[in-house]
Amino acid sequence: MALSDLTLAECWAYRPDLVVPEDLDAFWERTLRVDAPVEATYEPVDTGLTQIRTWSVTVAGYGGEQVHGWLHLPTNATGPLPCVVEYLGYGRGRGLPHEKLFWASAGFAHLIMDSRGQGWSAAPGDTADPHRYPAGTVPGFLTRGVTSPEDFYYRRLITDAVRFAQAAREHPAVDPDRVVVTGISQGGGLSLAVAALSPGVAAAMPDVPFLCDFPRAVQVAGQGPYGEVAEYLALYRGQSSQVFRTLSYVDAAVLAPGATAPALFSIAMMDATCPPSTCFAAYHRYGGDKEVRVYEFNDHEGGEAHHQLEQLAWLHKLFGR
Amino acid sequence: MALSDLTLAECWAYRPDLVVPEDLDAFWERTLRVDAPVEATYEPVDTGLTQIRTWSVTVAGYGGEQVHGWLHLPTNATGPLPCVVEYLGYGRGRGLPHEKLFWASAGFAHLIMDSRGQGWSAAPGDTADPHRYPAGTVPGFLTRGVTSPEDFYYRRLITDAVRFAQAAREHPAVDPDRVVVTGISQGGGLSLAVAALSPGVAAAMPDVPFLCDFPRAVQVAGQGPYGEVAEYLALYRGQSSQVFRTLSYVDAAVLAPGATAPALFSIAMMDATCPPSTCFAAYHRYGGDKEVRVYEFNDHEGGEAHHQLEQLAWLHKLFGR
Amino acid sequence: MALSDLTLAECWAYRPDLVVPEDLDAFWERTLRVDAPVEATYEPVDTGLTQIRTWSVTVAGYGGEQVHGWLHLPTNATGPLPCVVEYLGYGRGRGLPHEKLFWASAGFAHLIMDSRGQGWSAAPGDTADPHRYPAGTVPGFLTRGVTSPEDFYYRRLITDAVRFAQAAREHPAVDPDRVVVTGISQGGGLSLAVAALSPGVAAAMPDVPFLCDFPRAVQVAGQGPYGEVAEYLALYRGQSSQVFRTLSYVDAAVLAPGATAPALFSIAMMDATCPPSTCFAAYHRYGGDKEVRVYEFNDHEGGEAHHQLEQLAWLHKLFGR
Amino acid sequence: MALSDLTLAECWAYRPDLVVPEDLDAFWERTLRVDAPVEATYEPVDTGLTQIRTWSVTVAGYGGEQVHGWLHLPTNATGPLPCVVEYLGYGRGRGLPHEKLFWASAGFAHLIMDSRGQGWSAAPGDTADPHRYPAGTVPGFLTRGVTSPEDFYYRRLITDAVRFAQAAREHPAVDPDRVVVTGISQGGGLSLAVAALSPGVAAAMPDVPFLCDFPRAVQVAGQGPYGEVAEYLALYRGQSSQVFRTLSYVDAAVLAPGATAPALFSIAMMDATCPPSTCFAAYHRYGGDKEVRVYEFNDHEGGEAHHQLEQLAWLHKLFGR
Amino acid sequence: MALSDLTLAECWAYRPDLVVPEDLDAFWERTLRVDAPVEATYEPVDTGLTQIRTWSVTVAGYGGEQVHGWLHLPTNATGPLPCVVEYLGYGRGRGLPHEKLFWASAGFAHLIMDSRGQGWSAAPGDTADPHRYPAGTVPGFLTRGVTSPEDFYYRRLITDAVRFAQAAREHPAVDPDRVVVTGISQGGGLSLAVAALSPGVAAAMPDVPFLCDFPRAVQVAGQGPYGEVAEYLALYRGQSSQVFRTLSYVDAAVLAPGATAPALFSIAMMDATCPPSTCFAAYHRYGGDKEVRVYEFNDHEGGEAHHQLEQLAWLHKLFGR
Amino acid sequence: MALSDLTLAECWAYRPDLVVPEDLDAFWERTLRVDAPVEATYEPVDTGLTQIRTWSVTVAGYGGEQVHGWLHLPTNATGPLPCVVEYLGYGRGRGLPHEKLFWASAGFAHLIMDSRGQGWSAAPGDTADPHRYPAGTVPGFLTRGVTSPEDFYYRRLITDAVRFAQAAREHPAVDPDRVVVTGISQGGGLSLAVAALSPGVAAAMPDVPFLCDFPRAVQVAGQGPYGEVAEYLALYRGQSSQVFRTLSYVDAAVLAPGATAPALFSIAMMDATCPPSTCFAAYHRYGGDKEVRVYEFNDHEGGEAHHQLEQLAWLHKLFGR
Repeated sequence: MALSDLTLAECWAYRPDLVVPEDLDAFWERTLRVDAPVEATYEPVDTGLTQIRTWSVTVAGYGGEQVHGWLHLPTNATGPLPCVVEYLGYGRGRGLPHEKLFWASAGFAHLIMDSRGQGWSAAPGDTADPHRYPAGTVPGFLTRGVTSPEDFYYRRLITDAVRFAQAAREHPAVDPDRVVVTGISQGGGLSLAVAALSPGVAAAMPDVPFLCDFPRAVQVAGQGPYGEVAEYLALYRGQSSQVFRTLSYVDAAVLAPGATAPALFSIAMMDATCPPSTCFAAYHRYGGDKEVRVYEFNDHEGGEAHHQLEQLAWLHKLFGR
Repeated sequence: MALSDLTLAECWAYRPDLVVPEDLDAFWERTLRVDAPVEATYEPVDTGLTQIRTWSVTVAGYGGEQVHGWLHLPTNATGPLPCVVEYLGYGRGRGLPHEKLFWASAGFAHLIMDSRGQGWSAAPGDTADPHRYPAGTVPGFLTRGVTSPEDFYYRRLITDAVRFAQAAREHPAVDPDRVVVTGISQGGGLSLAVAALSPGVAAAMPDVPFLCDFPRAVQVAGQGPYGEVAEYLALYRGQSSQVFRTLSYVDAAVLAPGATAPALFSIAMMDATCPPSTCFAAYHRYGGDKEVRVYEFNDHEGGEAHHQLEQLAWLHKLFGR
Repeated sequence: MALSDLTLAECWAYRPDLVVPEDLDAFWERTLRVDAPVEATYEPVDTGLTQIRTWSVTVAGYGGEQVHGWLHLPTNATGPLPCVVEYLGYGRGRGLPHEKLFWASAGFAHLIMDSRGQGWSAAPGDTADPHRYPAGTVPGFLTRGVTSPEDFYYRRLITDAVRFAQAAREHPAVDPDRVVVTGISQGGGLSLAVAALSPGVAAAMPDVPFLCDFPRAVQVAGQGPYGEVAEYLALYRGQSSQVFRTLSYVDAAVLAPGATAPALFSIAMMDATCPPSTCFAAYHRYGGDKEVRVYEFNDHEGGEAHHQLEQLAWLHKLFGR
Repeated sequence: MALSDLTLAECWAYRPDLVVPEDLDAFWERTLRVDAPVEATYEPVDTGLTQIRTWSVTVAGYGGEQVHGWLHLPTNATGPLPCVVEYLGYGRGRGLPHEKLFWASAGFAHLIMDSRGQGWSAAPGDTADPHRYPAGTVPGFLTRGVTSPEDFYYRRLITDAVRFAQAAREHPAVDPDRVVVTGISQGGGLSLAVAALSPGVAAAMPDVPFLCDFPRAVQVAGQGPYGEVAEYLALYRGQSSQVFRTLSYVDAAVLAPGATAPALFSIAMMDATCPPSTCFAAYHRYGGDKEVRVYEFNDHEGGEAHHQLEQLAWLHKLFGR
Repeated sequence: MALSDLTLAECWAYRPDLVVPEDLDAFWERTLRVDAPVEATYEPVDTGLTQIRTWSVTVAGYGGEQVHGWLHLPTNATGPLPCVVEYLGYGRGRGLPHEKLFWASAGFAHLIMDSRGQGWSAAPGDTADPHRYPAGTVPGFLTRGVTSPEDFYYRRLITDAVRFAQAAREHPAVDPDRVVVTGISQGGGLSLAVAALSPGVAAAMPDVPFLCDFPRAVQVAGQGPYGEVAEYLALYRGQSSQVFRTLSYVDAAVLAPGATAPALFSIAMMDATCPPSTCFAAYHRYGGDKEVRVYEFNDHEGGEAHHQLEQLAWLHKLFGR
Repeated sequence: MALSDLTLAECWAYRPDLVVPEDLDAFWERTLRVDAPVEATYEPVDTGLTQIRTWSVTVAGYGGEQVHGWLHLPTNATGPLPCVVEYLGYGRGRGLPHEKLFWASAGFAHLIMDSRGQGWSAAPGDTADPHRYPAGTVPGFLTRGVTSPEDFYYRRLITDAVRFAQAAREHPAVDPDRVVVTGISQGGGLSLAVAALSPGVAAAMPDVPFLCDFPRAVQVAGQGPYGEVAEYLALYRGQSSQVFRTLSYVDAAVLAPGATAPALFSIAMMDATCPPSTCFAAYHRYGGDKEVRVYEFNDHEGGEAHHQLEQLAWLHKLFGR
């Protein structure tokens, strides 16, 4: 393992000129302005666990389509709880209900959102993406509808994410002023987007975020899903400006200035999937108070269990324990 | 490169017990019984070529959905022509109109079918698959809807293929008694399925066919798309019998006994993508007269340009030159 | 991914003639006959978790040397609890205290043993192996002292494991009649060894066990730590019989007939690290009642979260819920 | 896939100081000054094609040695035709006569030159290189005789290429004022050399050209035949200046200023075989009018079928359609 | 590392039916019947060594062409010495004169033959192969002229080897009754061929021999030069019987019954370059007394320095120390 | 193969600011100040060689622990000889006694030191490292005790090396004023350390030295043992400054200014294991007269046999032949 992107000093200095679409705000306002409620339903699940109670969640996401998830609450908890809303890494579905026990074990409400259409290799998913599958999609999600911001997959996924954050704030066991969004990789990118588009969020904790600074990421990332864009453009020669225009609408580094909540980032310097420079691009542009934990010798796994403790301590400090 | 499957002698002796669903015929009859015409339309294309004239084709495929393709005719050809209907390898779209010039240069009508939703890495595609994208699909097409024969992607693709063969027979420049189906890999598997399901086809020329003998293929194939099924079952543990039941409806080795047209197969002994034993399973069960060219030292590329000449000679003999 | 070992049918029939050292029982009696108590100490740890209480454990292991671990108890639990004693996979240390929350969340006491000297790549460790490092050791543990059963690393590790099981039985919160040993890979091999050498264990749940049927494993395993033995013998030519003799003393398939507790195995058919035939060798020879869950399309990850539920259900049935 | 060479902006600015041997012109004048005619012979071939007529060609190449090729003419063509002379990529032989049908299908004469001694992996060859095989050659052609410009393989191959261009101009069906040289990779380097050394050529269309800017290419290319030089110098330490001196005589970037015909280049920015900076070195130094199509997300495959259309349009514009 | 060929028990039983060409003896008699002397010349070399004296050797090889080598004699040796004639592994040239010091340090004359045309990657060479380079040769030597026994490269190399053994017997410092041939891989195959074709040799010591049992080797070898034949036949489809006929003339397993001198083989069971079954094919058919050292856990490196001591002890026993 | 570090021009300019621990001299003085003699013993070995006599050596190394080696003397040598003390590359043990014959064949005494605990893959070892094995060590030696300079493995290994150089000077057959230290990779790093810490050494010949400029090496090296440090820090997050502090005590580039003997370096520009910039860091800081041979196209193998001749010539010049 070795550095494959900028050094740490270069990352601190890296400030790319990202193109912000003129109608960015209008695009998202139009997409998110929905009077319909999130229609969250909660079905109890028997996981066999005694210390944590779990519900299968359904929320009306983009287009009113059903998006699933899990809600964990600590057994015997009383009073409104702070809530961690977690978005998942690329490819991962919500998995089995007993897979992620940290936040509820620590006394938090924990809401996990399934990523529509995803759910292979790492964890099963349960949410379909009921939209036509365009020709030319590179297997995966990063080029699904990439020729138009309207049809692009990530428009739908970000909308789902905003609505899950809203569902969390409306849940009776949750304190609506202490809803935090977090996630690793794709989940980190979604956290940033929600922090920018959803004013009621109390904090964001994006880890090794994906979906940042596409123009550089597609040229630099030596592995992982950014390569889907390169593979697409290798075949569909001449669509480059159209594709990067679409991507700019969902680019978390483009959206980041709109955020105001405090944020704790983590970035890994030997990350070949989400190159550190692209994560720093989002960090530098982030609109709220911010801190970053840099993991100098890690690849895309980042801070793992070590960073969970950083997050827990940071939240305890933010909210008062 | 080395053998990674059975030896040639073992392949000649390999006769697997494939499970044939009781309602196989009913399933396909129900699927294909459509009174609606194929509604083929032909739009001329300016390719810049002088020796071949080309049309962009649209056919009403499964569910009446538009499926595209190309039709090439030799310039100055007169009278009804024999026609080669070609289905494409996995991942490939119909490409640019001037990419495949062999059959028209040899005096044949040549009809190429786009594979719905496909079209990456090797050649662009233009045909969407306007169906919901279920959760849990391994990127690619082999597990899209694999939990049910009704929803499975290959049900739709095989139906498209049958209807393209029918469109060929109805084209005024084509001699309906000399319509041949062919293709490499996925195209080979589709050729076998069409030969089995579409009585009017005059001959089939499947090359290193995919979609054959799934139960063995999924365990043996060291690379390529069969691995999508293994990856799916690795995560969705316990769905094995359900998945293999779905696959049996589109397994070209299961369908092969229903074919009656003469066939020229090609099989490669060092093929790690479509293991030779699985191709021989289809060959042995094929219902019509048959020959096979075995390429002992080739991987999945098979006979390439060399085999094109074998096919041309075989067709000239079959039809009289 | 593809099969790289025997098929499932062949595995059911595979019964190797394993050489059992004449003094096997005497060797282990001599090794384990220690009058000294296990001297377990328990130091509370502040993990930040509210639903689970955790202690850092120290047990006097082989040679009275301090071996560390974690003990998790469900908060508010009362009365003696069933206890799951977990041994770790190769290379992994006990990690951070909040990494494994499943069993305590499910109402069990959960005792995790650090593996002496290990703790890299996947999870940190805290236990030294205070013994001389012989020349010629292939980096790793599988050849450390392999020229003599007395000096071999796994003699020490198995002894540690036996003493952790004993410590569990002696803990005041634990019901000594419901102590279960489990683990994945190396942890699975250790579970088998403890079940064979430690009569008070109530059940064993070995997953994709390592340390089984060395003579075959070293020839067949295409990846993973068995290769350390092959690498050693490639350089130290002529030590083959001496090395396999040492290995036979710690071979879980050799020890397995001595077990009497009921067992739930898991075995993965595409496991290239711990080939399924070698796991079946242990299964077939296992002395107690036994069941096995076979994962046909998994590599060494085996059943993962899916299998945790199988284990929980099996334990609930065994102990009555 | 990612950038592994300079960025596009850096490539536009990259102007290496290439060492031009003092006797470069004399060397090539001496090599090419042959009064003997090219002695082209044309033997008709029955390819089975109806739209294209094909001849097997033999030309007296370097040393009067027989070099083979194919000539394709569109059936029924009348009057002198523009002619595309194509040189082949490294390793490829002329192949079977029906493999390359684009230019003749488009109404051009198409002359393909076999590369002496080559013809493996991609397409068979038929032309021997009847010269002694020196000790120390790294398998392949890039170090065959590399210790002396006189004996170097590429001196012979470039000479063959010049004489094929001359043969095209002398063919009765060809318009001598509309002979174009082209080729991919090695064929692109040969096109540049012929454009520089053969004044009668009407245009050059080099694609992702090989044989350019050896001093940088040997240090930067991560894959492909430039590595043969590195491998040679790794063993024959101390021959570095001698070897690079030889290479400078056939370096297409060194020769490029001598060209006067208009040229259409293609360069791929993620090309790890022929790094884009080395292609730009030739482009910047090229003596005639020039354009370049840059493929930003392609590896060494470059523009493929997409670029064929660019070339056809460019030629139609150049020659008037 | 793992077994990739037959097990040891299977190798002991493996007796392939190799096709022996009817005119095999006549072919070699015609090839080797040369009245001309070997014309060995010996030029002293200043290596800087004090304990060993070295000469650069030239012998008239096949066609009277000059083949080089080294002769080492122990300083201060007196009286006729036993001589080890060593042939080199594939790709390796004679190297620098001080690279191989074992046999002369042990008191033997040591004659090393350069392999014509070879000399890359591992050690430089100095001997050209002054023959035309046919089209279609896969880079390397295994298909150079493979369409005809007369033109095949290995006909020339074996002839060189026979003549070097003769030169050794004629050298004044050498005892002609104690000339031994040896070599690793290609050198092992040549040792077997010389033992079969050159009656005066006192012993043969082939190590992990190449050039044995081509029909199986080409199908089974997962790496190394046998793959050149597979690659050739993958492109030149239909030449299979012609090529294997040529190979049978130089197949060391075909020639082995003709040998009468005692032999010490070494074979490695995890050898993926020269699969053990193919070496055993030669061993079983070898005509003289024979022993074999089997290295069960080695790949193609075989016994290395360990086996040198086995050879030294075996020679001391054979010749009396 | 391609450059993966700085270019040669950049390497000549590269002068890193290395942190020198304040107590560096005190640390080494304390470590090395031992009044006890080296207690070298020499046991004759029967290698079967006639030109070289060999002894198995034992020296009291760090902590008085027995460290083994070989001593070779040219047979019949008289008078005090110059002596080459060789330290070994990472992982390699002293091997069999007849493996390294060059220096004794050239008339030098040759003392080879076993590396404690090492001896796998390339050559067996015979020296144990009788120290506790701390938890968390990445397999290998680079992180063994890396949390403290006192406990770090390389403190012990460097001490052994200093004492072997002293043993050489005390041997009756050796001229104490002509003792040279050398070695490849790890052996090169040890040579530099000994030259800096052991005043009586006459010259140093470090080849592609390891253990140089750790802060850069750990970030840049794409393969090899520097990666152990990166892997350690990836898991033990937050120990970075502590670990690099320990490494600075044994960093050969940190120690190099203390050397006064003349030195001949070799550095390879395509070395991905010991990146050339890190070797140049040591070269630039080296305190004595110095020369360097740069191998521009070699990876970590460096100059090999070619460089042995450079070394021999350099020593002959230094000492007078």
